[in-house]
Amino acid sequence: MVSQDLSQLRQKIDGVLVEFTKVRSSALTDIGAELNPVAAAMSEFITDGGKRFRPIFAYLGYLGTGSLEREEIVRACTALELVHVCALIHDDVMDGSDTRRNKPAIHRLFQSLHDESSYQGNSERFGLASAILLGDLALVWADRLLVESGISREEFINAQEVFADMRDELMAGQYLDVLEGALATTSVERSLKVARFKSGKYSIERPLHFGAALAGKPEFNKTYSDFGLPLGEAFQLRDDVLGVFGNPAVTGKPAGDDFREGKRTVLIAVTMENCEKSEREIVASALGNESLTESDVATVQEIITRSGALAEVEKLITDLTNQAISALRHSSVEGKIANVLEEMAIIATQRSV
Amino acid sequence: MVSQDLSQLRQKIDGVLVEFTKVRSSALTDIGAELNPVAAAMSEFITDGGKRFRPIFAYLGYLGTGSLEREEIVRACTALELVHVCALIHDDVMDGSDTRRNKPAIHRLFQSLHDESSYQGNSERFGLASAILLGDLALVWADRLLVESGISREEFINAQEVFADMRDELMAGQYLDVLEGALATTSVERSLKVARFKSGKYSIERPLHFGAALAGKPEFNKTYSDFGLPLGEAFQLRDDVLGVFGNPAVTGKPAGDDFREGKRTVLIAVTMENCEKSEREIVASALGNESLTESDVATVQEIITRSGALAEVEKLITDLTNQAISALRHSSVEGKIANVLEEMAIIATQRSV
Repeated sequence: MVSQDLSQLRQKIDGVLVEFTKVRSSALTDIGAELNPVAAAMSEFITDGGKRFRPIFAYLGYLGTGSLEREEIVRACTALELVHVCALIHDDVMDGSDTRRNKPAIHRLFQSLHDESSYQGNSERFGLASAILLGDLALVWADRLLVESGISREEFINAQEVFADMRDELMAGQYLDVLEGALATTSVERSLKVARFKSGKYSIERPLHFGAALAGKPEFNKTYSDFGLPLGEAFQLRDDVLGVFGNPAVTGKPAGDDFREGKRTVLIAVTMENCEKSEREIVASALGNESLTESDVATVQEIITRSGALAEVEKLITDLTNQAISALRHSSVEGKIANVLEEMAIIATQRSV
Repeated sequence: MVSQDLSQLRQKIDGVLVEFTKVRSSALTDIGAELNPVAAAMSEFITDGGKRFRPIFAYLGYLGTGSLEREEIVRACTALELVHVCALIHDDVMDGSDTRRNKPAIHRLFQSLHDESSYQGNSERFGLASAILLGDLALVWADRLLVESGISREEFINAQEVFADMRDELMAGQYLDVLEGALATTSVERSLKVARFKSGKYSIERPLHFGAALAGKPEFNKTYSDFGLPLGEAFQLRDDVLGVFGNPAVTGKPAGDDFREGKRTVLIAVTMENCEKSEREIVASALGNESLTESDVATVQEIITRSGALAEVEKLITDLTNQAISALRHSSVEGKIANVLEEMAIIATQRSV
């Protein structure tokens, strides 16, 4: 498996999502034409974009144990993308984000539907309710895709424990993230803990375990943790950097959205530790300030860079990625797949979106 | 199985929930003490109250096929209660309800935690985010309880399709319910459709199918639909009546909450059809009016009674219940269990809470 195969795998995953969403959408519209907007929004959100990291890592986790390629396993691994869709839809509601991938977030989409259709009542509440339900639906669909993937009973049963743990940890991590915002944490240690739970385990380690479970080879879990945990942290740190310095046209989120939402990232925590008192006050007042201007955002970006926090976090990303790759090199992961995992490690931590 | 056994069954279900929640709570607090409030709120919400109708119907659906009592099946059926917990927590957020079972709704509970802890940021947003996550967690826990119930692989696999369909229909029904509020529907036919989807299928028919699936006897599905669909509608109609005329001390919801939330129930639709134009305007302006006084509520209650809508809906409840019971009498459902199902039909439609 080489680079080319990786893009083929991504296409296969996209294909599974297109096919699955088509069937589910028509099941929805069979209930009533009133559900057309739900079906359309689910299809578009699920099939249009997304890096598919979790299914990719899960499938590589499966192959890395020496198991052979199988379409059914690709389908089973794709279930993880639907869990992620739930997380994204609900996350945007919780954060009050207006956009996702340069398009309106689901709650805003349904708010607009309400406005344009001259429905009765509060359109914001309608958008909120719709987004909660669409997120729930994605979570339920994840389950269904796994059930209907065509894997054997044994494989299905084997995967259940990791699947349950992963979703529990996701919800717990999301709560910690929300709580850290409310606690206005500036502790580097606490931010790292959230990064580890919110994304470190959920984005990479657990998908790899999921793949190993499908293969019936839990003996790979340790290696996958040694690789996946540091890499997952690096992955989240890259997210944090992109949340501040990413190109909005590429990330699909406005610049400075992370400030407006008051996110307590490691990048911010390191900045607060490093910078002058007067600068610290500027950063603190920017966090959670929903009316932040572009020039305010630029000022905070400058402080983060000048404080050395950006360089420090970049170094941390490199170190964690190297640590992950080194764990892989001393493992029994199948050679070709280890190379692809290494490639994925670079993609996940050096991305611009 | 007689009345006494029914209360024993309810106790068993409660026991399963207590035991399961204990283990899950400690898994949460193992992640960090910050999750104590989540663990405490989940435990209290899940174990304190609830009629347990869905697990009861599911287990009776299993026994009705002639299958023998088994603790593992009780546990598997109890998973449906956790799906319901998700629906309730998210429903309260979507409706903006302040209370549930005479206690603060989950989003209000976490809003208060934020206020009392002097957290940073918007406490309402914190409450909202927490309730979304706790509802998600309940949905994930439902899955886990089914997985860990101790049923055989075959039983587990057999139950998956109904389990998936049931949750899809729940989310679709909830969306229809929200949409009908926005459309300000006054059509009896449309309200009945929502009643059927929101509760008719989800509360009784699907749990019975779930039981039949666990027993590996889908041939009981038709009988269970003939019994469960009319009964489920009657169940929802009783809910609608209680939402207007229920004793707040018993229902745990303030009087007139359904008006304030602008719910388009069959009871309201029939009232709108029957009453005078001037009264229709009073009812219409009460729906969705969040500042409704007690005396406003009393006025609308009077209109509903005087219009004959209450009597009409009560007759509909009786007719649907009789239709359900009659379907049962001409079926191959195991005799003693058919009697208990008949008893449950009365309990579900003549309840005061």
